[in-house]
Amino acid sequence: MTRPVAIQDTFPEDASHCYGCGHLNDVGYQIKTRLHGDTALTIFEPWSQHIAYEGTVYGGLIASVIDCHSAGTAAIFTMIDAGVAVGSEPSPRFVTAHLEVDFLAPTPLDRMEIVGRLVEMTDRKAIVESELLVDGKVTARGSAVLVRINDDV
Amino acid sequence: MTRPVAIQDTFPEDASHCYGCGHLNDVGYQIKTRLHGDTALTIFEPWSQHIAYEGTVYGGLIASVIDCHSAGTAAIFTMIDAGVAVGSEPSPRFVTAHLEVDFLAPTPLDRMEIVGRLVEMTDRKAIVESELLVDGKVTARGSAVLVRINDDV
Repeated sequence: MTRPVAIQDTFPEDASHCYGCGHLNDVGYQIKTRLHGDTALTIFEPWSQHIAYEGTVYGGLIASVIDCHSAGTAAIFTMIDAGVAVGSEPSPRFVTAHLEVDFLAPTPLDRMEIVGRLVEMTDRKAIVESELLVDGKVTARGSAVLVRINDDV
Repeated sequence: MTRPVAIQDTFPEDASHCYGCGHLNDVGYQIKTRLHGDTALTIFEPWSQHIAYEGTVYGGLIASVIDCHSAGTAAIFTMIDAGVAVGSEPSPRFVTAHLEVDFLAPTPLDRMEIVGRLVEMTDRKAIVESELLVDGKVTARGSAVLVRINDDV
């Protein structure tokens, strides 16, 4: 099975320098979000320096990953809802208007999976809810309100 | 007038490696929060790569700075409330349980001032509200619920 395209890799060049998810930002996080069943999935390996205390991930990184992941999730499901395959046409793009993160438990410094769902979509506004898991355990939850900034699709 | 000590510089060595505010994390943001009148002030110069789109700061960085700034603000005002000068004794330390950010307008890639106030304090829980300004204009607001993790002070 072919791996689904990452939505961020479909953004035009002038929208691909984001520190969180721009594939043209050499020092950034290069977050990639892909359709995964009826969810959107981001997998991120924190750097060894991304710590809060020894062995746990810094909360700001968690907020950062959830932020870009949410914008990517909104874009993916806007395309799905329109019956358009991700990567086949220019992607809708969103910016975050409101971000909330609940830190439920320390997040071990290990491979993080962020699973997102679109819970509401109006004309220009999307609400995405996400869970962050390490080794199957949910350690943080995110909720983001996003606003669409283009009309390509 | 002597510049007030940054609360993060008073943390013990094992709590000084945080990617956001640890002064021993060489590649991190080294966020520093100081008492400033009846507020706590963090000044942060984003890197040129910390962009979302051209000329605007990436939202994840804003969330990151507000996160550590909020924990620092809670620590500063816990000491003030106890009648203890910041830097004179071991500092109380907090972790974030809940973080919210409202992105009100694009934040220009320039010197950011984050001004925080403690709005509630119970036995182990603090609520901090903050505004982020660039060149005098508020572009984001943050609210954080923090939980105390030590009893040194």
